[in-house]
Amino acid sequence: MAAGAAIAAERGARVLLFGPAAELGDLPAGVEVEDAPVSIAKMPDPVKAARTTPEASIVRAARAVAEGRADALVCAGGTGAALAAGMFNIKRAPGIYRPALALPLPVPEHPVTLLDVGANADARREHLVQFAYMGAALASSVLGVRRPRVGLLSNGEESGRGSELVQEAHAELAARAGDGRDGILEFVGNVEGDDLVAGRADVIVTDGFTGNVALKLIEGVSQTIIAGIRTAARSSLRGRAGGLLLRGALGGFREEIDPETPGGAYLLGLRRLGVVPHGRFTRRGFANAILRADLGAREDLVGATHRALQAADALRRSPVSAQPVSLTRP
Amino acid sequence: MAAGAAIAAERGARVLLFGPAAELGDLPAGVEVEDAPVSIAKMPDPVKAARTTPEASIVRAARAVAEGRADALVCAGGTGAALAAGMFNIKRAPGIYRPALALPLPVPEHPVTLLDVGANADARREHLVQFAYMGAALASSVLGVRRPRVGLLSNGEESGRGSELVQEAHAELAARAGDGRDGILEFVGNVEGDDLVAGRADVIVTDGFTGNVALKLIEGVSQTIIAGIRTAARSSLRGRAGGLLLRGALGGFREEIDPETPGGAYLLGLRRLGVVPHGRFTRRGFANAILRADLGAREDLVGATHRALQAADALRRSPVSAQPVSLTRP
Repeated sequence: MAAGAAIAAERGARVLLFGPAAELGDLPAGVEVEDAPVSIAKMPDPVKAARTTPEASIVRAARAVAEGRADALVCAGGTGAALAAGMFNIKRAPGIYRPALALPLPVPEHPVTLLDVGANADARREHLVQFAYMGAALASSVLGVRRPRVGLLSNGEESGRGSELVQEAHAELAARAGDGRDGILEFVGNVEGDDLVAGRADVIVTDGFTGNVALKLIEGVSQTIIAGIRTAARSSLRGRAGGLLLRGALGGFREEIDPETPGGAYLLGLRRLGVVPHGRFTRRGFANAILRADLGAREDLVGATHRALQAADALRRSPVSAQPVSLTRP
Repeated sequence: MAAGAAIAAERGARVLLFGPAAELGDLPAGVEVEDAPVSIAKMPDPVKAARTTPEASIVRAARAVAEGRADALVCAGGTGAALAAGMFNIKRAPGIYRPALALPLPVPEHPVTLLDVGANADARREHLVQFAYMGAALASSVLGVRRPRVGLLSNGEESGRGSELVQEAHAELAARAGDGRDGILEFVGNVEGDDLVAGRADVIVTDGFTGNVALKLIEGVSQTIIAGIRTAARSSLRGRAGGLLLRGALGGFREEIDPETPGGAYLLGLRRLGVVPHGRFTRRGFANAILRADLGAREDLVGATHRALQAADALRRSPVSAQPVSLTRP
């Protein structure tokens, strides 16, 4: 992470780094270190640890963000710990039911953002509807998509297909599109598993269970196919020669599908932005995560998300704000 | 399909083929044609069409299986129509809550059967438990796995992870393993998306929504990676030369991951076996589907499934059979 912070700082980001100062070595001027030697990344229950270990580096970083000393939280200590530290310290943004993890997938020619990839295993209709606007706000404010096409992941394209949850969410998103309450997004209906790589939508919405299975499946299948081709190429002299000749041409493709390129998942729905790179990333992935967080903060992604939900009347009404009359009655 | 039937017949299967006799041409002796020119494959609502079109080829084929004139149903007219025709004519096997579609995935070195890949979008705990035994019966009787390792698809390996549904199913399967009621299978706990290609289980159980998304995602990602590599190889003279040299070595790998090799999904849980090849298959895939159905019938997969569920005490108790005393009271 420190090496990634150094790269990001050299590219203009200002980084407040929480970690064991004694081990971090020399860092460029843009990286300010706060000594936080306690790590909960390897704890058996990182969610509980995030609640009960105020001195943990991830918790201190989240608190610094909550206090406004930093604009976004980047943490690679595991999704569970990042979510817990964010929820307890930065807290949910007003009107948000549930935060979500939104991952821009590195699909060549057809980039697509999938959410939720694992913040919540179970979801309700109103959660998926909010995810649609949260993902659209990310796509339009940070990823440069003008009117994001949003699809709902399902087991069939037809509007009647899907689990009960998907059918309910589909009905609401379709109704919004029907009477012009769709706001910043264009609802393209149900999309199927293969549409995750086919460019039919800019944002694909699903519950955190399905999204997490899909994400890991994409990684696993990509690696299996590439490994299988490599093994096949090495199985003969002719194949080895072919593989050598191909190496240069494939380098660009491998970079296109590299999960380190998008820098990780965006944690949306908190009062400040979070970005969660994969713990196995190299310095390049961590640097990308920090640069994405920097961009997201500068583009005011949190504000854009709130405005998108507000314009679509999709914010949660709290019991108090839903009855304003009783509060102002003389 | 007729060309596939011809190949299967030449390899020893006996085929009763329902289709437009006038268009089918010459077929070998093992293929007996029943003229059934009405197809519902292209209808807008094939499920409804399967209920209301008794003369449809798929319905007539299902009826022939129900009447015992054939031992298994093979149909490529779409999963919805196949399911509907099977449910209404062949009917559910005793003690089965829901039929399931089980697909042996063509993963090199690590074959794995995924179910349900789309028979039911929503599932309950007892459905997933039955799917575990149905998949294990398939793996042991037809695919030659001695004590199938069964995993539950989830968004995390730990037993506490997963949707409510998965947590409930996990608890029941773990309890069965704990007190020796696990029968023919070995429950290996939760597996993640990437474990679908990693060999951690022989059978992976999920609801038909997640299973269908996963299946289509595997197809889409495989094709995208292969197409991306091909495009990269063609982008330079050097790459083209490499691609040509590799072609032979890759042929074997491409056949290993070809979805036509396993012949399609097994429709389990009816009184007779069904096999559902993909409508886009070539004659080779259809022939494989027929040969798999032939093998499944000879190995008595339906009986093996029933025995596996019975031995594990996982059959559904009907209101009548649960109270046998009231029926025999004098």
